[in-house]
Parts: sequence; structure tokens; C-alpha cells
Amino acid sequence: MHGLNGSQHRREESVVIGFVGGGSRDWAEKLMNLLALTEEFGGTVRLYDLDYESARTNAELGRKIQRQEAAVGDWSYEAVETLEAALDGADFVVCSTQDPPSETFAHDLDVPQEYGLHQTVGDTVGPGGTFRALRSIPQYREIAAAVREHCPDAWVFNFTNPMTVCTRTLYEEYPDINAVGICHEVYHVQEWLADLAAEHLDIDEPAYEEVDVTVKGVNHFTWIDEATLGGRDLFEAVDAELATRDPPSYEPGDPAIADMSVYGTNHEVTLDLYRRYGILPAAGDRHLVEFVPWYLDPVEAPADIHRWGIKLTPSSHRVESWPEAMAEREAILSGEEPVDISHPGEEMVDLMTALLGHGAVKTNVNVPNQGQCPDLPEGAVVETNALLTEDSLTPLTAGTLPAPVRSLVETHVTNQETLVEAGFAGDLDLAFRAFRNEPLVTLDPADIEALFADLVEAERDYLDAYDIAGADVLH
Amino acid sequence: MHGLNGSQHRREESVVIGFVGGGSRDWAEKLMNLLALTEEFGGTVRLYDLDYESARTNAELGRKIQRQEAAVGDWSYEAVETLEAALDGADFVVCSTQDPPSETFAHDLDVPQEYGLHQTVGDTVGPGGTFRALRSIPQYREIAAAVREHCPDAWVFNFTNPMTVCTRTLYEEYPDINAVGICHEVYHVQEWLADLAAEHLDIDEPAYEEVDVTVKGVNHFTWIDEATLGGRDLFEAVDAELATRDPPSYEPGDPAIADMSVYGTNHEVTLDLYRRYGILPAAGDRHLVEFVPWYLDPVEAPADIHRWGIKLTPSSHRVESWPEAMAEREAILSGEEPVDISHPGEEMVDLMTALLGHGAVKTNVNVPNQGQCPDLPEGAVVETNALLTEDSLTPLTAGTLPAPVRSLVETHVTNQETLVEAGFAGDLDLAFRAFRNEPLVTLDPADIEALFADLVEAERDYLDAYDIAGADVLH
Amino acid sequence: MHGLNGSQHRREESVVIGFVGGGSRDWAEKLMNLLALTEEFGGTVRLYDLDYESARTNAELGRKIQRQEAAVGDWSYEAVETLEAALDGADFVVCSTQDPPSETFAHDLDVPQEYGLHQTVGDTVGPGGTFRALRSIPQYREIAAAVREHCPDAWVFNFTNPMTVCTRTLYEEYPDINAVGICHEVYHVQEWLADLAAEHLDIDEPAYEEVDVTVKGVNHFTWIDEATLGGRDLFEAVDAELATRDPPSYEPGDPAIADMSVYGTNHEVTLDLYRRYGILPAAGDRHLVEFVPWYLDPVEAPADIHRWGIKLTPSSHRVESWPEAMAEREAILSGEEPVDISHPGEEMVDLMTALLGHGAVKTNVNVPNQGQCPDLPEGAVVETNALLTEDSLTPLTAGTLPAPVRSLVETHVTNQETLVEAGFAGDLDLAFRAFRNEPLVTLDPADIEALFADLVEAERDYLDAYDIAGADVLH
Amino acid sequence: MHGLNGSQHRREESVVIGFVGGGSRDWAEKLMNLLALTEEFGGTVRLYDLDYESARTNAELGRKIQRQEAAVGDWSYEAVETLEAALDGADFVVCSTQDPPSETFAHDLDVPQEYGLHQTVGDTVGPGGTFRALRSIPQYREIAAAVREHCPDAWVFNFTNPMTVCTRTLYEEYPDINAVGICHEVYHVQEWLADLAAEHLDIDEPAYEEVDVTVKGVNHFTWIDEATLGGRDLFEAVDAELATRDPPSYEPGDPAIADMSVYGTNHEVTLDLYRRYGILPAAGDRHLVEFVPWYLDPVEAPADIHRWGIKLTPSSHRVESWPEAMAEREAILSGEEPVDISHPGEEMVDLMTALLGHGAVKTNVNVPNQGQCPDLPEGAVVETNALLTEDSLTPLTAGTLPAPVRSLVETHVTNQETLVEAGFAGDLDLAFRAFRNEPLVTLDPADIEALFADLVEAERDYLDAYDIAGADVLH
Repeated sequence: MHGLNGSQHRREESVVIGFVGGGSRDWAEKLMNLLALTEEFGGTVRLYDLDYESARTNAELGRKIQRQEAAVGDWSYEAVETLEAALDGADFVVCSTQDPPSETFAHDLDVPQEYGLHQTVGDTVGPGGTFRALRSIPQYREIAAAVREHCPDAWVFNFTNPMTVCTRTLYEEYPDINAVGICHEVYHVQEWLADLAAEHLDIDEPAYEEVDVTVKGVNHFTWIDEATLGGRDLFEAVDAELATRDPPSYEPGDPAIADMSVYGTNHEVTLDLYRRYGILPAAGDRHLVEFVPWYLDPVEAPADIHRWGIKLTPSSHRVESWPEAMAEREAILSGEEPVDISHPGEEMVDLMTALLGHGAVKTNVNVPNQGQCPDLPEGAVVETNALLTEDSLTPLTAGTLPAPVRSLVETHVTNQETLVEAGFAGDLDLAFRAFRNEPLVTLDPADIEALFADLVEAERDYLDAYDIAGADVLH
Repeated sequence: MHGLNGSQHRREESVVIGFVGGGSRDWAEKLMNLLALTEEFGGTVRLYDLDYESARTNAELGRKIQRQEAAVGDWSYEAVETLEAALDGADFVVCSTQDPPSETFAHDLDVPQEYGLHQTVGDTVGPGGTFRALRSIPQYREIAAAVREHCPDAWVFNFTNPMTVCTRTLYEEYPDINAVGICHEVYHVQEWLADLAAEHLDIDEPAYEEVDVTVKGVNHFTWIDEATLGGRDLFEAVDAELATRDPPSYEPGDPAIADMSVYGTNHEVTLDLYRRYGILPAAGDRHLVEFVPWYLDPVEAPADIHRWGIKLTPSSHRVESWPEAMAEREAILSGEEPVDISHPGEEMVDLMTALLGHGAVKTNVNVPNQGQCPDLPEGAVVETNALLTEDSLTPLTAGTLPAPVRSLVETHVTNQETLVEAGFAGDLDLAFRAFRNEPLVTLDPADIEALFADLVEAERDYLDAYDIAGADVLH
Repeated sequence: MHGLNGSQHRREESVVIGFVGGGSRDWAEKLMNLLALTEEFGGTVRLYDLDYESARTNAELGRKIQRQEAAVGDWSYEAVETLEAALDGADFVVCSTQDPPSETFAHDLDVPQEYGLHQTVGDTVGPGGTFRALRSIPQYREIAAAVREHCPDAWVFNFTNPMTVCTRTLYEEYPDINAVGICHEVYHVQEWLADLAAEHLDIDEPAYEEVDVTVKGVNHFTWIDEATLGGRDLFEAVDAELATRDPPSYEPGDPAIADMSVYGTNHEVTLDLYRRYGILPAAGDRHLVEFVPWYLDPVEAPADIHRWGIKLTPSSHRVESWPEAMAEREAILSGEEPVDISHPGEEMVDLMTALLGHGAVKTNVNVPNQGQCPDLPEGAVVETNALLTEDSLTPLTAGTLPAPVRSLVETHVTNQETLVEAGFAGDLDLAFRAFRNEPLVTLDPADIEALFADLVEAERDYLDAYDIAGADVLH
Repeated sequence: MHGLNGSQHRREESVVIGFVGGGSRDWAEKLMNLLALTEEFGGTVRLYDLDYESARTNAELGRKIQRQEAAVGDWSYEAVETLEAALDGADFVVCSTQDPPSETFAHDLDVPQEYGLHQTVGDTVGPGGTFRALRSIPQYREIAAAVREHCPDAWVFNFTNPMTVCTRTLYEEYPDINAVGICHEVYHVQEWLADLAAEHLDIDEPAYEEVDVTVKGVNHFTWIDEATLGGRDLFEAVDAELATRDPPSYEPGDPAIADMSVYGTNHEVTLDLYRRYGILPAAGDRHLVEFVPWYLDPVEAPADIHRWGIKLTPSSHRVESWPEAMAEREAILSGEEPVDISHPGEEMVDLMTALLGHGAVKTNVNVPNQGQCPDLPEGAVVETNALLTEDSLTPLTAGTLPAPVRSLVETHVTNQETLVEAGFAGDLDLAFRAFRNEPLVTLDPADIEALFADLVEAERDYLDAYDIAGADVLH
């Protein structure tokens, strides 16, 4: 037996966190709030960003948060000018990076639309996910190499999409890295299951952490084959919910759609897939529809997508949310807006707490497959539960998937592995083989080629690690 | 070393061949012609068919062939009324069966067309292949059980499509069966390579047997990663051919299309896939396009398919060819038409000759995977080369496929394995999981369900081994 | 995240424990003591034994323990006369069975000694382990069948050796069983590591639960490739210990040997294997030496074994300890001896507590391989850590073994799998293939056969599930 | 179908053979005789040897052979002074090398005898095989590197033991090499089976090539699970032979032993293993006994080994046969002895003939596992049948081994892979892990270490690629 309540003998030290992408408009603030609320440990956060100004602003925000009464943790913040300065001797490295949306993400979404391909998210798979992967691989190689040099034993938390490819890149470059990809998508499914339990099984308002799920697959396309609460099977609640639903036919004007954020979901695709395969997808509908050809393929107009109770996230939303977040941050710093220290519903600091020896945590993580998914390729990054204890993260075995589902998942594993290989080799012809094999890309062969070429052209400035001149597919 | 030129000690006996589907309009005549031209051995052929009259007519035709001067083999023919009578003590069992096209195959093609899904063949994968599989599995279980009882050591040659599923069913029912699925698709690719060698490499008219290819994959979706002639790499000839071609844009009226049989090919899809993956598909274009989503999916009208230099095989062709063949056979028997004993370009009797100990043969066969395709699941029926010697058939190792191609192939392996499981269990919900996972079936989810239900309804009389009432997908 | 501190929504019920081998002289008393000390839950224990009288005596002892002041748990005890009565509706089934040593275990040890084969334990592998396995398989099939019928969802805890074979048999008979093999061998290694940490790393008296180890292999031949305490690497302590040791050459009269229990160990074999392979064996030396040929093979007299600081456990010890334990129990019941409720250092009730939802436990268990040992065969029973939460036991991935060690382990996996196959088929020729492949059995071939025959003869009454008359090896 | 009778389009060229170890006393003469008898092709043989004089003498012998009337092939011979000169542009490379026996092989045999370990051959596994492997790995790396540079497409035939390790080294150094390990051990088993067929099945004097066997395993420890002749099962003949035999108890003076060459066998071990496992070993008894612990372990004096109808090959035989062969060659060159051109019963030129396109050959070869042995590790060198055609060698799938036999084989696969890893790293501690895991090495742990150190000391001059000073096991 090994105690899970934390060690008497843990090392008590001041913790150093290096934040890569420290100008982040979202994850940085979440982290700073969480740290402010943490009593178990304190230390220093070093914020590094290509946009130094943005990192500096975040440092200022961090210090402002620390000055609030609600802030119990003891943390200092500094913006640094080099990756090395952020990482040197760090205990944790947090990665949350993004290229300027107007020069990248906007193209990822808009160029395929010209060919009739609509993407609900576009950051994981499909044309957008593929190009985001191609852009990220050289960046994450660089981060991994810097970790190897400056903080080889640090725990590296990645929040950047495409989660699987970025995390896989870290391990490909530096196989001994302690990296883990962290995503909240499964928590939301646990929350939904908790709601269903309350509604259909007459259980009093359970917290999402009480819902125990066996997760497996790849990020944003994970599957749950067992969900329980207090030993009770929650698939009963899902079945009960399914029985209340009509075939989905939402209209754009329906309130369930009209008032919904672009990040919202009505779980219709989830339930459709559950009904087909007897196993529950563990991601929002807007992600799920990008992994299979059936929901987005026959779309003639974006409105059709609404039928499934989901919305497209338009590129304008991506482009505009960037300065909006900036403005909001400025407003807080200037005192125009109040500082709000609330728990953002994220688990990253819980994971740090566990790794520092203050008690175990079980949660879903993205790490290379070492048996947790015995029917997926060894070494590919998969998402399953893991147990985190002092300085240790161990995946839990998750068992196999039903064969037809495994086949759907493995298509993406192959594409992701192929992209990493292409990214390390700078080989766009190899990348195109993955692109063409994306379930969303069911265009005529000549159009697939043209779309790929258009995307390369639009994002050429971000692809300088690739041999564009030598790519057959472009000529 | 083991001699490949035939044994001095082979058993010399009169051979018994049981033909299941002995009323066949095509393979029976081919077999009878080949046997008439064979000097190494003789014996008896027993023709069994649900349509006894057709078997009786074939027996008569067989005897007429034997009476020709060109017939050097010594063979007798008889029509029998039961499967048992055909198989009892047989040395070889030949399977070539087909349900009445107007009641089955026609629906396989026409019902999906109502949903916009056009199939160029429809007998292997896609909606048509799936339903043909569902109809065949119970029939091939019955044949395997009869072999186990009446001729457990016989060599069973299957010619029926879907080749993979039928052959897999034989092994699932009777694991010790000596069954082999035989298909001429690869020979045609060897012929084409021989032509290209003559044209581009200045080699004198090679015979197709001189072309050595390393084949792997599943039937009608096999791939060649090495092709040589006299030690010379034939991919040079393919590259040379590719250089002569423009992007395909055949018009329906083009002579290359207009005068072409529905079985014809202009190798455009083959070359397109070769260009993408660096490995050569080893089947006709009309088969290949059904295994991937790109060529048939965006079709708005059947004519679009012509662009790739291929034709749809309309259901009317299937329905009409049946009585035409009947009539032709009658004309020969009545003396109206002459008997023409010519070599049909098939290898089945060469395989028999090898198995009887008259010298070795190397050719492509469909048998369960025992290592010949190490990156495909063990036990699934795969197509690779094998060596046939006296009473022995041994697959040759074929090595692995490039990852993106393996991913395409494995989708079909999973579907085929799922269909066999569904067929043995009579489970249409499980069958639907395979159906939905077919790359051609990229319809809206509700339409996929409706199409499946329509096909079940149309072919209900041929699906009595399935639990239609209990299938969730139909209700 | 899923909370590990126990559920708010767990089912609160009175627990039923069926004890198979309830007349047990050792595990029954341990269980009763542990339950008496447990506050979280209470219930009923039903004791079943072929020797009903012994079960009845234990029930009386259980009730006496409950009457002690220190007993905080609320438990009732009853002896039952059938397996069905013990299992019907049980929440937990505890298995601890043993055939009469004088008729079985004594032969397991003494007959091989006539051939020069000395066994230090003889209950897991080697000649003794093999025959114990053959006797146990039919018994554990019967238990599994009864569980399937009377309490299909119960958690079954097995304590009987050979641990791997008994647990594997339960799953082979009833694949959906919730069975787990539990062994304390690893705890003792954790204790030793805690001692070494105190001694060499200057850490204050750590509890064994603070030592975190990554365990993998098969029961009694598991290996640790990572051991930490508070994030500190304990292999440093092992290295330090190794540096203090001379090459082992204990004499029978040395106090370290002379005063040591037959169950004692001086860790010399452990350290020898650690030095060779760089990975730490996680079992007592007396077990380890039976898994490899080097330590027991060249023995000319039992005294030689002492050189390694270990003792043989003579058959007389096994035979005599049986009535001694009986007498001791009687003395307690009669009041001659006081009842001593102390914690026996076992974890079984901690596991129950976790499975009932009162907080998670991480410990080493024996269950079928589903990826936790990716380099050992799927389905074989392996020992690794697992996480136990409410109604759930999930193995943690343990990673691979160094190739030479894996080779040593896999020999035993093959033997164990072969024995289970032989036991289900009643096939002694197949059993002999495993027997002959035991590393300890390096006799001349004719002697191996004679030894096997002698053991069958000696234990014939316990082998009636086997086809003795039809075994080639015996004739 | 691909024709097996040879190509019409093969390249007709003069062939260049580079012979590494061209001073060889055995294989060089065999090759020269075979070439002299070959009509299909001619060319040049370049003999390279560290002992240049010996190569020169062989060249002279080759020319003398060519001058005989019986010599139909057209060949010229030359001794060359560098590896490069031998290999530059070669079509075939033949490797048959040996260190001076008195400085190496003699120690391999004699040093272990001092510890009671008797080896019947000592060139494949056991202490002798291990040290021969350690000496060979650096040499075969060098050869592979030279092939890569000077004749990257050549076919490399290896005849040197340890066959598996030498061939594996070639592939480890140069993965694209066309190397094949060739051994006659299986032919002798085919001959024996032919004899048994004649004796027990009343078949007229079959040639060994008529016996068809399915071979699998590692060199000198291969197994046959199917043997046929003219479709007839030859295990019937083996069973009949077994029935005639008494338990083996040969005395040193028995004629079957006394007059037998040290290379002879009475097949007693073969039959003993066949009886145990139902599958036939395919190597001489003198090899087989070194792969398992039962036959040589309990030997108290060399004479005991005779009981199994085999002899030790004493080191003196190895040392003396070297100058004897030299003298014999001199006698032929001086005209004292006649030149005898007879077929040596080896197949190497048949393999060349096939690879040059003159007709297919099926025979047993040693190449990396790519599915031919699906239950052995991928990439390890295994021995199975292969089909050789023009410029192509393809292993035939051989299926799985019975689990207990597979376990015996896999122990050696692990050792061999470990040795190659140790050889490339120069790591004697890793090599010792393999040494200690040899089934023959069942000494007391301290003696195993001492024996290893003694062997390193004795052969230190041949181990300069290893880090002797840094090896823990030696200090």
C-alpha cells in the first residue's frame, strides 16, 4: 500500500513556475487566480512571451491579484525576456501559446470554407487542426530542447492545441521529459453526468469530482465506457436522458441555439454517437463532429450545422476575442474593472499540489501510451486517467475500445503520428498524406490538393521549418 | 532445400471436384475449359446449384467441351441435387455463388443511388458490399460446415465476392479448413505493368507471369510496394507513364470511355493513389474508388465519375447479363454457336496442379493473416503472395504498409471483421456499425439509418438469419 | 478529476463476507482482527470449510474477538455447511484454502529432495508449486463457478498459493469475475526499504506506506524499478546497503541464520539480483531462489543454502504447524490464552474499505494483464500496483522490464499459463511440459520423468480431475 | 502468378564474388567445387583473409580446380589484400571467418570445463557461443560497413557461427543489407527423414530435397511441425522409429559411438524432445543439448554425455584440424594428392543461381523476423523457409510454436539480442546478463562471475572493442 494522503517526508521548497506564452489572455489569468487561492505552497512565476509587453502586463496583473485580500498564497510574478530565463531551474513549465489569429487561425477556418468545408472549432483535426499542428511542431521542439537544457526534471504542463500533437512533439524531441497535456473537456462531461444523475436518478446535486469515468482515446475524441457515482451506473441516467429527446432538428432561431455561446453544446451528437456505439464520447459536440465525416460533410450552408444544436465558431470571433481580452485586462489593471479572484474550474494547480506531495489526484491526462490503451499504438499520445502522487504521474489502464470506435480513433492517431514525422522532417508531402486522410476532407482529389496549397500560401510566414520549394504536392 | 519442380512420389489419383454454385454462368465454363486443356490430371466434376436445371445444363456443356478435339484432359461431369452429394470425398471444392441479381444486387446499387450514393461495382465494400456480405455469411457457414463433415481435407477455392468476408466466414465456422480466396484482379495489374515495361523500358513483350510483385492488403484494395521484371524495377515504368498523363478529365463521349466495357479502367485512380502514397494499388480503378471517400463522394451525377476514366456498372447490366449468359449457353448446347475452348486467363487449375504435386506456383491468395501482413490484425483474411506445393499453401511474408495506407486498409479490415461477427450473431445493430463506418457512407446520420432500413426492407427475404425485429437501428 | 477521499453518495449497507477455507488457521484470524478494528462498516462473515468443525471453531473465535473491548467494528460470525450458503449474495468472497499438508505439501517437498532438488518454500513454482497448482485448479474452477451463480458481482480476494495460477483459474472459469490476488510480500520489501532509508539516508523512521514502489512481474517474482520516499530515490539507500555487504557466506551456526525463522531473509539474493540487473526484486529471498536456476541448483546438501542467509522450510514444519495452530486456537477459546487483537500488518480490510467507497487505496495486486505490463502476455495474471476506489479496481501502468529480466519472468508466465490449460483439460502430459521447463528442474531427462511420476503417485488422491491412465509421461 | 522457372529477361553478366575469410579451409573449397560444377553463370572470386598467404593458397587451389576436366564453369580466382578490394562492386559477398582456435575456441571449451561445464560444440550458445559472439560482433560490424560503402546491393551470405548473432550484427549496422545466414543443419534432418521414410514407409530412396519441412526458430534450435513427402506425413515415420528405440544408454565403447565422428548423431536427443513436445527439433543432437539445461547439466564426467549417443568435440580437435586442413591443401597443390571435384552437399550456389534469375529455390535461411515467426520478436534473426527468385529472398510464414517450446527459444532470442546490444556498446556488464541467462550456465552465482572473468582474461586480445576496465562484473 502506498499512502495517498500526502507524504510526511516531502521536500518543502519555494516553487518556480516558468510560463511559456506568458502573455496568454486566458490560461495565465486562470493560473494566477488558482495560485492565489492555494495554501499548500508558494513561489515565483516567470512569464515569457514573444510579445514581451503582454507578459509584462500579466505580471502586473498577477501582482495585483496577490494584493487582494482573498489571495492566501504567496507568489511573486516577473516577466522575462528569454525562454532560458523562464525555464532555468524551473519546477514546473506551463505552455500556452498561440500565433496571431488574424494571420493563422482565421485562415485555418476561412480558406476551407471557400471549398465548402465548415469547421466548428478547427484547432485539433481537420484542415485547421492539421495546419495548427504544422505550425506548432517546430515551436514545441524548441520548448522541449530548452527544457532538456535548463530544467530537465521539471513537470511540463501543456494547454495548447492541438493537444496530442504538441505533447507528442515534446516527447519526440526529449523522450525523458515529464510532460503532460491537460484539457478540461472531460470535466465538462463529468459535470453533465452529474446533472443527469441529479435529474434522472434523484441524486442530490453531486459535484463533478464525484463522477468517476473511465476515459480513453485521443484528446477531444475520448470515450467513456464506465461512469459511476457512489457505485451507481450513470449510463442509466444517460439512457433516461436519451429517452426524453426527439431527433435533433434545432433551428437557428431556437433559444437553445440563439442564446448559446459558440462554445456551448446540447449534447445531441454525444447522444447520437452513444446510441450507435454503446459508449459515451467525452468531449463537446463541437469537437466531436470534426472527427467523423457524417455531421459536417453534407452541410450545404453553415446553418445546417445548427440542426445538431451546435454553432460554428467563426474566424471573426477568434480574431476579435484577442483585442477584447487585452482591453479587459487593461481595464482591470487601471482599476476600471474590479479584480475577481474566483476558482476558474480548472485543475492545473491541483495537479501541481499532488506532484509536490500534498496528496494524490486522479484525473485525465494526455501522455504517451505505455499500455493504458492496449489497442492503440505504443508511444502515441493518448488521453486516459492517471494517478498523480509526489513527483510521479502514472496512467491507469483503461482497457480496449469497441472495434468500430477503435477504427475511428486510430485514423486520427495515424494522422497525428504522421504529422509529427512530417514536422520533424519539414516534409509537406508527408503532411499532405495526413491532411488527405482527415475524415472531414472528403473533397474531390484535385480540390484537396488546391486547398492544401492555398493554406500553405496563406500561412507561409509560419511554415519556414518546411521545405515548401521541394514539396511535390505544391507543384 | 525443397524441390519446386514437382514430386516423384506424389499420389496419382483421379481427382474429384465439387462445384458449389455449379450452375454458374461464368466460372463454371472457365473451369471446364481449363480442365479440358490440362494434361497432368483428370477426374470428375460434380455440379451443385440451388437452380438444379442450370447445373444440369452446365454438366451437358462440360461433356460437350470434352468431346472437342482440343480437349486433352479426361473429365466427366455430373449435376447433383444436394450439397452433400457434391462434397462427399471431394479433393477440391469450388465456390462461386450468387443470389438472383434482380432481387438483391439491383437493390444494392439502386437503393443507395436514391440517397446520392453511386457505386461503381458494389460487391465488396460500401452499401452494396455490406449487404452482399450479410447475405453471404449464412451461406458460407453452411458450406464450411458441409466441408467439415463430408471432405474435411479438401482444398476449397472461393471465387465469390465479397471475397474477404466469404473466405473469413469459411475459417470462422471451420478453423481447420483448407480454404483460399482466388481473385484475378492482381493479374490484370501485372499485365498492365508488363505493357508499361514494353512501352517505357523497351523490354520485349513480357508475359504477365514474368512480372514479380509484392502484394499486400485486402482483396480489391491490395497494394504493391515492389514490382520487378528480370530484376528491373518496374516503378520506373510507372513513373514514366505518370509523366505522360494530364490531370484526368474524361468526358462521357471520349472514345477511351465511350467504347470501354463497364469493367474497363484507364488506371487514372491507380496513378493518382500511386502519386500520393508512393505505393501502387493493385486493383482496377472501379474497385479502388469504393474504398476511399474522395472519388465517389462529391459526385452530383453519375457522369462525374467518368472524369476518372471509369464507368458505373448499372444494376440493369447485372440483371440483364444473367439471362444473356443463359441464352448463350443454350446456343452452344444446341449447336447454334460453336464451342470455343480457349484459355480464359485464370489460374485456378494451375493452383490445383501445384497442390497435386506437379510443380510449385507462386501467386496472390486470400487467407487468414498469420504474419504475412504483420501490421494488420492476426486472423483477418488478407491478400498476399503464397507458395503452393504438394498439398501445401504457405503465405509469403509481405512486410508492412506505409502508415497512412495501413490506416485506410485497416478501416476495411475492422468493418469486415465486424460484419462476420454480426453475421454469426444475426445482429443488425452490429452490422450497422460497420455500415456507418464505410468511407463511402458519408451521408447525414439520419439518412444513413434510413438507407440501411430501406436496404433491409428491400432484401428482407435474403436476411432471415438476422434478428430484424430486435434491431434498434430499424425502429 | 475524481475525488480520492471517498464518496458522499456511497451505499451504506451491512456487508456480507463469504470465507472459503473458513477453517483457516492464519488468514481467518487476521481478517477477524482487522474487522474488529474497522469502524467504517460492519456486517456478517460466513465461514465455509471442508472441515466444518474448524470453521465452527473460527466462528466461535470471531465472536470472542468481537466481545473484546478493543473491538470497535460490528460483526457477526457463522459457520456454514455449503459453498452456496457462504456465497449467496455475498459482497466479498475471501479464499484461503489448503489441502492437508501431510498428504500433499509434505510430498511436494520430500519427493523432489530424493532427487536432490531442495525447495525453500515449494508453494509457487518448482516441483512443489507445480503440483500445488495442479491440485488447486479444479478447486478454484469450482469456486469461480459458484461465484458466477451465487454472487456474480462480489469482490473475490484470493490469498492462496500458487497465487498466480489460482487467480488465473478464477478468471478462466468466469471471465467477468471481480477477483484479485493479494499478497503481502511487497509490503515487506517496502518495510525493508523504509529501514534502509532510515539507516542510510537519515530519514526519520518512515512508515512502510510512505515508500512508493513501481512493482511488476508475477507474484513472488515481482520487480521494482523505482522506489521513492518523499520524492527521494531509495535506490541510493540500496546502493549504500550493498556497499556495506561482503559476499554472502553464512554458516549454519551464524546467529543471523541460527535464530532466524524459516520465513526470514537476509536480503542477500535480493541484493545479488539487484547488482546484476539494476532492478530490485520485490519478494523474500526464499521465494526468489526458486525462480532461477543458480541458487538452489548446485546444492549438494541443504546446508549449502544457508550460505545465502536463507533456510529451507522443511516439510515437518508444514505438517506440524497445522496441529500447533489448532491447539493455539483451542487455548484461546478455552480462555487458557488471552485474545490478542492487534493489527496483523495485512491490507485486506483496507482494500474492502476502499471498494466500499470510503477513500482510495493504491497497492499491489494480482489481476489479468490488460496493459499494466505491456511486455508480458495479455490476460496472464501479473502483479502491479492498482488504484482501488468505490466498486472499482484499476491497474496502474507499470512499464516494461529489462529484456534479460523479462525473459526470466516470461518463462514462468508460460509455465503458469500451460498449467492452467493442463488443469482445465485434465492433461498431465501438458502439465509435464511446464514441469520440465521449471528452472529448478535441471535433472537428467529420465529423472525428471521419474520425479513427476513419483509425485503423481504420492498425491494421486488429490488429482482425480486428471487423466492419469491416459498420460504418456507416466507409462 | 509469378513464374518460378526463371526469367527470360534476366540480366546476363559476369558475376563477382567477394570472399571474406577467403583463406578458409572448408567453405572456400566447397564453394570452388560448386562453382566449377555450375553451368548457369561464371565470373571472378576475390579471396580476402587476414592471413593473406592462406587466401593466396586458396586462389591457387581454385585455379587448379578450374583446370580439371570436370570443371564446366568459367571462373577466375584472385587473392586480394584489403576488404575493400574484395568487396568493391561485388554481386555476392561470402563470409566465413574464424579466429585462431588455439587462442580463442580452445579457451571457449577448456575454461568452462574447469568449472564442470562441458560443451558439445561451443560455437552457438553457452559460454563458448557467448564469447564467440562477443568476438564476432565488432568484426561483422566492419564487414557490414564495408558492404554499405563498396557494394550496397550485394547479396551477403554468412556461414560463420554464431550464425544468428553474426547475421543480426550485419543488419544492425546496415539495415538495408541483403544478408542471409546459411546453415546445412536442416538438410541433414531432411536426409534423416528421407531415410526414415524409406525404412518405415516403404518409399523408394527419396532425395532429401523431396522432403518438405516447415522450419522455425533460431539457428541450431529450429523446429519442424510439418514434414511431408509426396503429400505423406513423415511424422508417421518418426513415430515408427521412436517405437523401435530403447531408452538411450550408449556406452563409450559401443560401436555406434566409438566409430562415430565427433560431428555424428544418433538422434536420441531429437527423439527425446520430439516425444516431449510433439514437434521435431531440426538440428543435430550435439547442438540441441546446448540450448536446454537437461542433457549437459548433471554431467559428472564427459563420458556421461555418451549415454545420449553423442560425443564432446574436444578443443584439441579444433586446434589440430586447422594445420591438418592446411597440410591437405598443400598436398593437393603439390600434386601429392589428387583434386577431387565432388558436390559437397551444400546449397550456396543454388541460392546464387536462384538470385541470378535461373529458377526459384525454397530453402531454410536466417534473416530478420518480419512476420515469418509471429510469436517471436520482430527484427530478431530467425530461421525459416524462404523463397528465392531473381534478386529477391522472401521468408515464408511459418506459424507459431507450442508455448513451452516458444519459451525455450525466446530465452535464446533475448540472449542474442542482448549480446548484440552489448557488442555495439562495448558493455561487458550487459554481456554478462546474457551469459548468466544461458541455460547451460547453472553454476553457483560466484562461479558464474569467476568463469566470465577467466574467459575475458584468456581472450582479452580479441576483446579490444569492450570496456574491460569499466566492467563492474570484473571487479
